[in-house]
Amino acid sequence: MSPAPSAAPAAVILLSGGLDSATVLAAALAQGYAAHALSFDYGQRHRAELVAAKHLAEALGACSHRLVQLDLSQLGGSALTDARMAVPETPAPGIPVTYVPARNTVMLSFALAYAEVRGAGDIFIGVNAVDYSGYPDCRPEYITAFEHMANLATKAAIEGRPLRLHTPLQHLSKAQIIGFGHRLGVDYSLTVSCYQATESGAACGRCDACRLRREGFRAAGLADPTRYAT
Amino acid sequence: MSPAPSAAPAAVILLSGGLDSATVLAAALAQGYAAHALSFDYGQRHRAELVAAKHLAEALGACSHRLVQLDLSQLGGSALTDARMAVPETPAPGIPVTYVPARNTVMLSFALAYAEVRGAGDIFIGVNAVDYSGYPDCRPEYITAFEHMANLATKAAIEGRPLRLHTPLQHLSKAQIIGFGHRLGVDYSLTVSCYQATESGAACGRCDACRLRREGFRAAGLADPTRYAT
Repeated sequence: MSPAPSAAPAAVILLSGGLDSATVLAAALAQGYAAHALSFDYGQRHRAELVAAKHLAEALGACSHRLVQLDLSQLGGSALTDARMAVPETPAPGIPVTYVPARNTVMLSFALAYAEVRGAGDIFIGVNAVDYSGYPDCRPEYITAFEHMANLATKAAIEGRPLRLHTPLQHLSKAQIIGFGHRLGVDYSLTVSCYQATESGAACGRCDACRLRREGFRAAGLADPTRYAT
Repeated sequence: MSPAPSAAPAAVILLSGGLDSATVLAAALAQGYAAHALSFDYGQRHRAELVAAKHLAEALGACSHRLVQLDLSQLGGSALTDARMAVPETPAPGIPVTYVPARNTVMLSFALAYAEVRGAGDIFIGVNAVDYSGYPDCRPEYITAFEHMANLATKAAIEGRPLRLHTPLQHLSKAQIIGFGHRLGVDYSLTVSCYQATESGAACGRCDACRLRREGFRAAGLADPTRYAT
């Protein structure tokens, strides 16, 4: 309903406060979109990444940043939202317990609603099929199916304004993502990737997310600006 | 994650408290499913239909009933969630202002997450393409696309437990829905369809939803048990 404040086309960017979504926001801005960042308070164990999202939206120059309350812990079933389940510190085969049932589907559905309200025809999400940790809803075939469904779901689509779902990180390794964001000027010290970061955003250095991130900086040949708690 | 309490297969039923979803719950139970009803507090103008949903789940014999907080009014854009927009009392061509952006997509996404948590392979929703009031996310092609996406989205689907999306009302007129539910023993006096019902659930008798409902009872040749405010 609200037009973008500039002549640039509006886009909705899912912004978690992590490394990947910060890079996606920078990519959308570099492509000339008026970026409306959207974050979710979905019952995460820690709020440090939501604080990071707010700072990133400002630092990178998003047009707006909205935080939506979306308490997935009401449904239970994941170590990321259920305080009774332990976060694993060593990788295991298969889909990890940190998987949140249908998380990307729920978040993309909200992004779809918000895009329609904002008059945006583009949604950006930082899914990645290379270092994807085994999540089914990060795969290219899933993204294609969501976009197809979205184009049948909304008043905007019915009226001839199609929805495009952008996944600029889809085929990049963590090191390539970091190199890409580095060239776009992303300050990765503002991002929080750790599954069990402290209140102030310091990383544990041991969980799956920390391990992937640390290896990414090393492989990219860049200094790791992450604040580690240990 | 939690198995159904009986040997019956578990299903998630979207239950708004209206006439259609009450009929769908009765249909799922008649088919032998252990029915887990799911309702949303999505910032509706009135709460009467949520009270109705609770009573219907009990009266019809659902295994459980969960109410999820899902505040779509955070996004704005619909007369059903935005108190500043007027609800129309006469039908207009095209998609009505009571359309909530991506509502079914958001609710089905939550149902998908909840089905995975419950170990349910079936979701029931009361969409209807005949008297569908012009909503794009009630059409058969939308439902097919959502089911396809859902079967790429979850750990359950990846592991060989597919998701089936049931729409038992899809091709029924309002009168046929009422006849169907009547034969299944649904007490429609417990349901609330009105867009602007009073706190106690009395209907305005004038909005689109009231008009369709009243005509439905008349065409079905059944007494209309609706409590009207006027």
